[in-house]
Amino acid sequence: MSLVLHNYFRSSSSTRVRAALNLKGLAFDYIPHHLRKGEQTAPDYLKLNPQGLVPALQLEGGDVLVQSLAIMEYLDEVHPTPALLPRDPVDRAYVRALALAIACEIHPINNLRVLGDIRQRFGADDEAVNSWFRHWVDVTFRPLEQTLATDGRRGLFCFGDEPGLADICILAQVINNKRFAVDMAPYPTLSAIYQNCLAVPALAAALPDKQPDAE
Amino acid sequence: MSLVLHNYFRSSSSTRVRAALNLKGLAFDYIPHHLRKGEQTAPDYLKLNPQGLVPALQLEGGDVLVQSLAIMEYLDEVHPTPALLPRDPVDRAYVRALALAIACEIHPINNLRVLGDIRQRFGADDEAVNSWFRHWVDVTFRPLEQTLATDGRRGLFCFGDEPGLADICILAQVINNKRFAVDMAPYPTLSAIYQNCLAVPALAAALPDKQPDAE
Repeated sequence: MSLVLHNYFRSSSSTRVRAALNLKGLAFDYIPHHLRKGEQTAPDYLKLNPQGLVPALQLEGGDVLVQSLAIMEYLDEVHPTPALLPRDPVDRAYVRALALAIACEIHPINNLRVLGDIRQRFGADDEAVNSWFRHWVDVTFRPLEQTLATDGRRGLFCFGDEPGLADICILAQVINNKRFAVDMAPYPTLSAIYQNCLAVPALAAALPDKQPDAE
Repeated sequence: MSLVLHNYFRSSSSTRVRAALNLKGLAFDYIPHHLRKGEQTAPDYLKLNPQGLVPALQLEGGDVLVQSLAIMEYLDEVHPTPALLPRDPVDRAYVRALALAIACEIHPINNLRVLGDIRQRFGADDEAVNSWFRHWVDVTFRPLEQTLATDGRRGLFCFGDEPGLADICILAQVINNKRFAVDMAPYPTLSAIYQNCLAVPALAAALPDKQPDAE
């Protein structure tokens, strides 16, 4: 039995885990769950992940891991090379904070279920949903851009010249932004990191349009 | 120079970091930033944390760490006893996922700036804001309750009988819930863990009403 990834091509947190698995060179079985059809709340899937969210990674021994950042930290602990985090504790905290800025402050506010909720609850139309999405990207991308533009630890990627945890989160978020026509011009450093991610075959292979369930 | 914590008594992520510092027995200078007065966006503070969020932990050497989970992971790496995470990688991923479920799926959607935004953007009144808050708590607390009620690793706390990363997040969230009159009856296991946290002096000392800027 191999690693099994329960995910959805377009899900940003699924993209993160695919990217981490690919960087580590780990093969996995791909099980799609169509979020717009609500397949993540099917009873069989809720047995694996009661939160009804993708991704979930089923290990060889049967354990099921959830929450993309927890999965990526696990992969980095069990398969340390290539590393997703630097070695020094202050540097690790720096890279984790960049990743969390996206994973906490942008993605959960802009995910499918919250966007669906503001439509239903407040009558938000397409334009209002797009404006909401772009607002929460900008609130965090602006200070991230400032930090990354000035921090001496940056190379081709957030920390040095190898992609890691924060770069993966940037890649997945920028891909997601495209569906909401976010203008990336105000974020040249984030754009450069995104482009550098695309040049890494393991990361490019994790993109939504490369997945078997892509539409 | 000692550790300096930039924070706000009522901020849930500030409560987390205070709890972790207290559990580790680390003294710190307390610098309050009044969120409702917008002090977190003062130019001097933005130099420390361009995101304009609390908490931020300034280390003895001058480095500034942000994002509460990144700060807690740092503290656990540099001051490993008592541990905030178990030793086994699968167990670590389990505890991290519990913490992230709160830190990603509840807290960012319910924090002050999003609640202010739905008031302004959608004209949400107090009742609509409370309903929004309770909804996003329930969406995640229901499956967390199910997971915690059935997982054999639970003791007095999420993992065994010592408080850790996930318990700290539960404590801070349940405290936050009180201001929105969230009914905890549907979550007996989460309630028990919360009560067990209150019985730990280091955690109780981190509560909002014990802080110098409490109102």
